[in-house]
Amino acid sequence: MIGHGGGGRLSGELVEHLFRPAFATSGAALGELHDAATLALDGGAGRLAFSTDSYVVRPLFFPGGSIGELAVHGTINDVSMSGAQPIALSCGFIIEEGLELATLGRIADRMGDAARAAGVPIVTGDTKVVDARLADGVYVNTAGVGVVPDGVDIRPSRATPGDVLVVSGPIGLHGVAVMSQREGLEFGTQIESDSAPLHGLVGAMLDAHRDLHVLRDPTRGGVAASLCEIASSAAVGVEYDEAAIPVPPEVAAACSFLGLDPMNVANEGKLVAFVPPEGVDAVVAAMHDHEHGRGARVIGRVVADHPGVVVARTRLGASRVVDLPLGEQLPRIC
Amino acid sequence: MIGHGGGGRLSGELVEHLFRPAFATSGAALGELHDAATLALDGGAGRLAFSTDSYVVRPLFFPGGSIGELAVHGTINDVSMSGAQPIALSCGFIIEEGLELATLGRIADRMGDAARAAGVPIVTGDTKVVDARLADGVYVNTAGVGVVPDGVDIRPSRATPGDVLVVSGPIGLHGVAVMSQREGLEFGTQIESDSAPLHGLVGAMLDAHRDLHVLRDPTRGGVAASLCEIASSAAVGVEYDEAAIPVPPEVAAACSFLGLDPMNVANEGKLVAFVPPEGVDAVVAAMHDHEHGRGARVIGRVVADHPGVVVARTRLGASRVVDLPLGEQLPRIC
Repeated sequence: MIGHGGGGRLSGELVEHLFRPAFATSGAALGELHDAATLALDGGAGRLAFSTDSYVVRPLFFPGGSIGELAVHGTINDVSMSGAQPIALSCGFIIEEGLELATLGRIADRMGDAARAAGVPIVTGDTKVVDARLADGVYVNTAGVGVVPDGVDIRPSRATPGDVLVVSGPIGLHGVAVMSQREGLEFGTQIESDSAPLHGLVGAMLDAHRDLHVLRDPTRGGVAASLCEIASSAAVGVEYDEAAIPVPPEVAAACSFLGLDPMNVANEGKLVAFVPPEGVDAVVAAMHDHEHGRGARVIGRVVADHPGVVVARTRLGASRVVDLPLGEQLPRIC
Repeated sequence: MIGHGGGGRLSGELVEHLFRPAFATSGAALGELHDAATLALDGGAGRLAFSTDSYVVRPLFFPGGSIGELAVHGTINDVSMSGAQPIALSCGFIIEEGLELATLGRIADRMGDAARAAGVPIVTGDTKVVDARLADGVYVNTAGVGVVPDGVDIRPSRATPGDVLVVSGPIGLHGVAVMSQREGLEFGTQIESDSAPLHGLVGAMLDAHRDLHVLRDPTRGGVAASLCEIASSAAVGVEYDEAAIPVPPEVAAACSFLGLDPMNVANEGKLVAFVPPEGVDAVVAAMHDHEHGRGARVIGRVVADHPGVVVARTRLGASRVVDLPLGEQLPRIC
């Protein structure tokens, strides 16, 4: 019976043991666990990036955003994590019968606004309606197509000992904003989702240093899950310094109250980059100059020791192994 | 309140009045009501076709197919209707908590088999899980990317007086197969879905005559809805001969029992082509040589009279205006 999907270990096993064998071809389909697939075009016309995500966030509207912005930003970001610049989005709506047209209209308007602001048009779409109570208002799927610049080769297995880990800004805001709204929690200050499209930031980072090794959008399962997946995929060790992680005080307070680790909370609008040491200064400087990278910080490094394992250096100088949470800490956050 | 989605007039109005304005850009997003959008790539590298569909068919398995084959064939076909050859698919699963893993595995296997048989790999995907009773087992979204061959320009507004209408084979089998299974109806002979991928047939047709004007995959709303949309989009009249429509006897019997018009029943694995008169003989001959076009027949023509209106010539020599059904005749057939 299915209880998977929160971005933890079980979700990875579903992909690994069920979908990967089913979809295998003699080629290299679903080769790496990656946010976007890349496709070679005939005639040396470059490579495409292609990605999809379904959005089932509850509630549909939350402080700082809605399912609409999320569906646009999330897929733009998945495409961007291959280094590609997205060129178009598709959208599919699964609508619960009885949903107010005004609600659907607000979501469509937010999607349109987010797509225009990002400069990535929604070019094709589809709607399906299911009976009342066979959906939760509306579910949105988006897919995105992008073009990978020449000379860019970004994928999890390129993580290499010596690489420096950079996070683009404070973590946990999106997940805590949705959770707080859903649970009716008040934390003094209103926590707003920081959902944002990251293709511009990625472009600026690539201009600063072409040979980025890995980019990851730490959504479900948070930064910790992303690091675990990359460590496993590249068979390298990953270390980070807990004190270096930018956790806003309001996120820390909310996580403490909810019994969550901010490293496991979903983000949308943040990225983690694995940058070879010779490129770090230029990349971090370029990030600081970009609206979505002002809070960029170095948080750790890739090591040759303990391949496949992520280790956190605690504030007290000790170290502990970071494991993927089993199952889902925070369902339906994206 | 939403009661749209069956492919009739209300569904078109949702797109026209809600999504199109919301997603409008200064460019030409969602320009024509079309199965796939086409995108120009920089540097003259040709054009991409991009399309998406969500599949909510009930039941998940039916005679001749399942939601898995449908999700692969349907999106391959939407991409193909621009004349493109599809190169990759994405998939997104929205899974109801409690779904048996074995069921999900069977669906994934069927998708993989269909994708391999079609030669179009599934390269990227996503799963989301929602609470029990907030979905109906599983909903599947697929998106597809294809490459439009040079010199091909297929879109609804190219329908031109003089064009000949060709349907690729018998209609109504898919819709009636799903409906019969769902309603527990028995019609003597088992009616099986004829769901099939059409990109090979489209390629053969283009080899026979490059200048096809319009291709359409008559899914929701059936052949009648497709003809109405194209007539409206191109502001031309469309006429067809009822006696020429290939309706299998078992479909006719089931439709008569259910009070449906076979022209309104959803298909998957059939296409309607608008072919300029000088190309018809070659195109029909190429279709007859292809496994998915053996039953191809000329059914009508485009006329300069009554722009935007579809007229059926009845068996008795009379004519009647064919209107889009208001709302949905057959929900959740794809």
